[in-house]
Amino acid sequence: MDPRCIPEKFFDIKETEVLVTRITGGNVRNALQDIHVADALFDLDELAIIHHTDCGTLTWTEEIIRSKVKSFAGKEHWAEIDKTVYGAVADLDEGVRGDVKWVRAHPLITEKLKKGTQGFVFDIESGKVRKIDV
Amino acid sequence: MDPRCIPEKFFDIKETEVLVTRITGGNVRNALQDIHVADALFDLDELAIIHHTDCGTLTWTEEIIRSKVKSFAGKEHWAEIDKTVYGAVADLDEGVRGDVKWVRAHPLITEKLKKGTQGFVFDIESGKVRKIDV
Repeated sequence: MDPRCIPEKFFDIKETEVLVTRITGGNVRNALQDIHVADALFDLDELAIIHHTDCGTLTWTEEIIRSKVKSFAGKEHWAEIDKTVYGAVADLDEGVRGDVKWVRAHPLITEKLKKGTQGFVFDIESGKVRKIDV
Repeated sequence: MDPRCIPEKFFDIKETEVLVTRITGGNVRNALQDIHVADALFDLDELAIIHHTDCGTLTWTEEIIRSKVKSFAGKEHWAEIDKTVYGAVADLDEGVRGDVKWVRAHPLITEKLKKGTQGFVFDIESGKVRKIDV
């Protein structure tokens, strides 16, 4: 979601070559529906999960977001908010590893796509993308 | 998610000026967590919901995606898949209107952000963005 992170800019991507989903923290858990739609239509071979340095998710906690949402939500919604995982991350590399492992263990992702899933960190300072060993 | 639709390209956006979420069909219902995180951190004034012409969501149905996902999922997951809404859209302008109305009626979105929510269609052919009256 960070405006400094446009995948088409930091990879040499030609138009129509890839589908790009951009969400908070690059959290793949919130992209399952997008993956299903893309896989159903285009029979995906590869999935690149990319988080980035200086990411906001490293600076807040689940509780900070939940408190803020509760501040304008009726109390009848608080239980639902307490169950929501907004995607705070304590360690960047570990966050990417966790996402890749989540995909590889997921019962609703094809074996082919699991094999083609890789994790990366985009470094905002250098403009380089680093592959994360999982 | 469509690779032809990079908001930074079709709006004159300066870096760090906006947060951009890109998901299937621009379906705001699947972006609530992103909205909450962004609003908690940056106290949002405005939300622009942008769908685009020639969008894949106009060409498939929920049943097409569900059937495909079921083809590689164990039967124990079929009930969950049947409940998932992937975001098929029958009419582009109506899809945008539906998203804006969903935001304005949502109990977990601030009144300020509801007032600052607008809907648009990006025309891939002309490169123009058209505002949708709601």
